[in-house]
Amino acid sequence: MTQNSPKKIEVTELALRDAHQSLLATRMAMEDMVPACEDIDKAGYWSVECWGGATFDACIRFLNEDPWERLRTFRKLLPNSRLQMLLRGQNLLGYRHYEDTVADRFVEKAAANGMDVFRVFDALNDVRNLRRSIKAVKRTGKHAQGTICYTVSPLHTVQGYVELAEKLVDMGCDSLCIKDMAALLKPQPAFDIVSAIKESLGEEVRVHVHVHATTGVTLVSLMKAIEAGADAVDTAISSLSLGPGHNPTESLVEMLEDTGYTTGLDMQRLLRIKDHFAKVRPRYAEFLSNITGVETEIFDSQIPGGMISNMESQLKQQGAADRIKEVLAEVPRVRADAGYPPLVTPSSQIVGTQAVFNVLMGRYKVLTGEFADLMLGYYGETIGARDRAVIERAGQHAKKPTITCRPADLLTPEWDQLRAAALNLEGCDGSDEDVLTHAMFPQVAPRFFKTRAQGPKNVGRDPNAAPAPAPGAAAPAAGNGQSPVRSAISYEVKLNGRSHNVTVTPA
Amino acid sequence: MTQNSPKKIEVTELALRDAHQSLLATRMAMEDMVPACEDIDKAGYWSVECWGGATFDACIRFLNEDPWERLRTFRKLLPNSRLQMLLRGQNLLGYRHYEDTVADRFVEKAAANGMDVFRVFDALNDVRNLRRSIKAVKRTGKHAQGTICYTVSPLHTVQGYVELAEKLVDMGCDSLCIKDMAALLKPQPAFDIVSAIKESLGEEVRVHVHVHATTGVTLVSLMKAIEAGADAVDTAISSLSLGPGHNPTESLVEMLEDTGYTTGLDMQRLLRIKDHFAKVRPRYAEFLSNITGVETEIFDSQIPGGMISNMESQLKQQGAADRIKEVLAEVPRVRADAGYPPLVTPSSQIVGTQAVFNVLMGRYKVLTGEFADLMLGYYGETIGARDRAVIERAGQHAKKPTITCRPADLLTPEWDQLRAAALNLEGCDGSDEDVLTHAMFPQVAPRFFKTRAQGPKNVGRDPNAAPAPAPGAAAPAAGNGQSPVRSAISYEVKLNGRSHNVTVTPA
Repeated sequence: MTQNSPKKIEVTELALRDAHQSLLATRMAMEDMVPACEDIDKAGYWSVECWGGATFDACIRFLNEDPWERLRTFRKLLPNSRLQMLLRGQNLLGYRHYEDTVADRFVEKAAANGMDVFRVFDALNDVRNLRRSIKAVKRTGKHAQGTICYTVSPLHTVQGYVELAEKLVDMGCDSLCIKDMAALLKPQPAFDIVSAIKESLGEEVRVHVHVHATTGVTLVSLMKAIEAGADAVDTAISSLSLGPGHNPTESLVEMLEDTGYTTGLDMQRLLRIKDHFAKVRPRYAEFLSNITGVETEIFDSQIPGGMISNMESQLKQQGAADRIKEVLAEVPRVRADAGYPPLVTPSSQIVGTQAVFNVLMGRYKVLTGEFADLMLGYYGETIGARDRAVIERAGQHAKKPTITCRPADLLTPEWDQLRAAALNLEGCDGSDEDVLTHAMFPQVAPRFFKTRAQGPKNVGRDPNAAPAPAPGAAAPAAGNGQSPVRSAISYEVKLNGRSHNVTVTPA
Repeated sequence: MTQNSPKKIEVTELALRDAHQSLLATRMAMEDMVPACEDIDKAGYWSVECWGGATFDACIRFLNEDPWERLRTFRKLLPNSRLQMLLRGQNLLGYRHYEDTVADRFVEKAAANGMDVFRVFDALNDVRNLRRSIKAVKRTGKHAQGTICYTVSPLHTVQGYVELAEKLVDMGCDSLCIKDMAALLKPQPAFDIVSAIKESLGEEVRVHVHVHATTGVTLVSLMKAIEAGADAVDTAISSLSLGPGHNPTESLVEMLEDTGYTTGLDMQRLLRIKDHFAKVRPRYAEFLSNITGVETEIFDSQIPGGMISNMESQLKQQGAADRIKEVLAEVPRVRADAGYPPLVTPSSQIVGTQAVFNVLMGRYKVLTGEFADLMLGYYGETIGARDRAVIERAGQHAKKPTITCRPADLLTPEWDQLRAAALNLEGCDGSDEDVLTHAMFPQVAPRFFKTRAQGPKNVGRDPNAAPAPAPGAAAPAAGNGQSPVRSAISYEVKLNGRSHNVTVTPA
């Protein structure tokens, strides 16, 4: 195989989106990415992930940056590259289901502003929540990538993933992505799933593999996925890699030498990109993830690193920091009761918070509204049956029936309403883009519109200029690196006449 | 393959020796290792590397710990484990060649104090420098592991490594080790070399693979080595892994799930070992390697991470910090002139320092004594021819002839002399062990013998107790984590009438 010309393995660079979302709490300012763009544009990547996920929220919440302007800037600075985004299906980039025409509009506007590749996922792998956005992407002529969220449970099988892949292909997806957000994908399953998809659906079905690095095994999983026929993999430049982030791009390149596969990436440009972000990264030290090494415990608990750290902080606020082990043991039970959803935004927060409640207040004595909705079908279908007793309790709590239809089918056209609400706001420029911004983040957008004219605010700082804050002192704007955006939600919970304040921060 | 019972892959745990040597400048005190020993002993490792390399030197130089006592303590605390050490062939644990009967005595004493597995290497892969220690190990009935130092050059081939393996097997080695000290071993060569050894020499020839993690690709290399038939691999518990260290033990275990291979290690014990060293590691923060991520540039320069950082500090002392790129480009040239030695203690220091001299003072205008010795054959034979003009200059400089014999053949029996010198010292207890300690470290042992009675000195400190030193302020005892022992050697060099002080610190 090394004698013939090697097979090209395409690469998606994550530095501009998921890498800093995973490592630096999504705080990187556009101006710190600009100097790397020329090298990124010419390094030979298949695509550059640079938008979506939590970046939209972080832009308006923390950076006073217009996310649409960020997208247009990337379009200008990366003229030769496919720009790629992560889209949460019917949730778009927000935290609720949107009515179909809003989803259409969002996709149209993203495409018009320069987006090329839409990676669309649903936290429950309910394809009904993907269909509308996939169709919208197809209508724009852009690349629709259908996503399989990878998880492990008694119900998840290779055959099940193949069936999911088949539905996505039937829907017209241009490629598939196996998305392993918690670094659970081991080498053998990586090989088995990619092989099975290629065998069942045909060699020509394009398979991308996205893995995180937290458990330390996933570069091996990428090797096995490539041996099984994967067409493309996601990596991040080394200076923004590892820990809860991703495998280093340069290591992928070197790993493949003489194997019969090659990325064709330009190593000199990669090293310049590396050097740039090695200089930038220390400016965001206060947001840096406190997971630095390898965490294989995730294989048992199946809880992504970011969730653990959030649950620890929730427990601390309740003076119950010592109960983390109970919570870690409770999460898999809650997940089983909820029909084994993958744990990814927003299901990870919903399941994690309910597990905290169960430990603090007794199992299902108190339900969050989101958990009740999950049990009643308002996020979609789960792979497994949900627990009957908990469903019943959820119905009593939420005073709503169980549903089996696609959740967005219950929504009525809302564009005009959303438009009117946005236009009412000081600083809103009347564009569809502004309407979408407000639609997705109604709590945050009004302030952003008001302050937008002041221009971007870079929250990074010269690591040598200011003394580091004393250990343990909470900087007001500081995340712990685990949460992309840190929009805290407070609950007041009454149990046996005692009132509890519980603050929940998204993972 | 997953249907039948999986093949057992044996594991050597590095936490107690190479892991803290690579990450924490070999500074870990025995008392910080003791609490983990029971779990290590029962986790199911094939062996526990815990002695040799730079630990002997660090014990007497920094920790006021008797290294022989450390060995006896491990023997007591790890009753079910094979204890393993790294031995530099005819150099033993020192920095010069020792006469054969001294080598014999060292091996006998190490075996008598509890050592089971002797991994013996020579920096030039000159097997003549291994033969005597291997024979000595065989005489004690212990396990002799012959080592192939892995490097990359126009002259190093799979066939060459197989021939080296054959010589080691012929010598009576019980197993072979492929030792990749600079993380240069990529997956395909790992597969090719292990396959070729097994094919040529027989499946029953036991092959161990030791890799560092610096370049980020070597866990994949371990996977490929295992697929090629490797019997055992080296890893370090995750909380003492990665960077210039090694791949995480827990990740290896998880990586192999369902692949047809298994380590059989007890994950619950591994996680307890992990937790222990996660607590210990911050105590040694001041010694922590400043390489934290992945460095793939090593593939081009072939310079181990530790060497780069030492050369930077040498250049800084000369007010020439800006010339590091010239030095990095010079190292491969010096290495080629010297016949392509692998870069490992002591060849890495010798080649690196000469490269610094070449850049600062003109190519081969000034030679170090060690570099002259290397060129003249006093360290043994190199794989490639050494440059004639440089050999001639080395002869003029050192006023010695070129040799082609085994270097130790020039030495006359020295035990009685070494014994007399040691017995003369205050605090020497008259044992062969003390004589060997002094023989290997004549500059350091006298002070150690005097202070030994005061007991071990733990140089770790509570990270919360003392304020961290200001960035840039040099703590007197602090290493930068790159050098295991930091025994600086100062040269005064005159060139065109100008005097230069050059301080060289071993990598």
